[in-house]
Amino acid sequence: MQSVDAKFSRNSLLLALRRYGTVVHNMEQTVLLPSLLRDVPYDDGSDCEAADNSMDLYEYYLLLKAIKNTVESGLIPHDDAKAKSHATLHKGLEPLLEAEPEEIFHFHLRGLFTVMATLTKKSQNLTEKYLDIIGISR
Amino acid sequence: MQSVDAKFSRNSLLLALRRYGTVVHNMEQTVLLPSLLRDVPYDDGSDCEAADNSMDLYEYYLLLKAIKNTVESGLIPHDDAKAKSHATLHKGLEPLLEAEPEEIFHFHLRGLFTVMATLTKKSQNLTEKYLDIIGISR
Repeated sequence: MQSVDAKFSRNSLLLALRRYGTVVHNMEQTVLLPSLLRDVPYDDGSDCEAADNSMDLYEYYLLLKAIKNTVESGLIPHDDAKAKSHATLHKGLEPLLEAEPEEIFHFHLRGLFTVMATLTKKSQNLTEKYLDIIGISR
Repeated sequence: MQSVDAKFSRNSLLLALRRYGTVVHNMEQTVLLPSLLRDVPYDDGSDCEAADNSMDLYEYYLLLKAIKNTVESGLIPHDDAKAKSHATLHKGLEPLLEAEPEEIFHFHLRGLFTVMATLTKKSQNLTEKYLDIIGISR
């Protein structure tokens, strides 16, 4: 039974949200001088680095903190800057409009779960990069 | 301040998930003979009824209950039937692959919030339809 429980736990959205909060909290505790991250290019060695190259590590640090606030408050942000990026995302997303609500529910539930794992990893990478910069390696 | 708080509350994902649980609980308490819903076509009077016409109200009742279980457990279901519908959903969703994680996060957060509101409404409609069938109108 233990392995079944463990498998369930790994797939819990609530746990993924909590884990993200913990990792970002650790990042905040470690990064005592965020300004050292300015002008350091973001590079996590993954395939998607090309998409992130417009931001430096300092901007990414602020972004990861802002997402933590959204996660912890559970509130959906209202702002026009986000709406702009959504317009881009929604372009070509016609399959969603035709899908039934239960499919959309599972789609977004899994999507949120997956992206939380990605963001958690990015926060861990940023923390390690900061430790490299100040000359402490773990 | 009160109106700001109220606005925030209406946009909380956690509140939307909880509200859905309450409405489906009420549906379960009201629908004492779910078999009366068999072969009753699903029709909520909305524009998307065409997408739902393959299910009768009984199937929809079971589906809304299953989604409540997923919401309350917070677990991401593993099953091949769901994977099939996701393949359809993912077809044409290339913009998501190119987006940055924080955009994807906001996209899924808002999406989950919106679909919970839709499913909540559907559960309320189903409860009202059941009351019509047994001759009780509110």
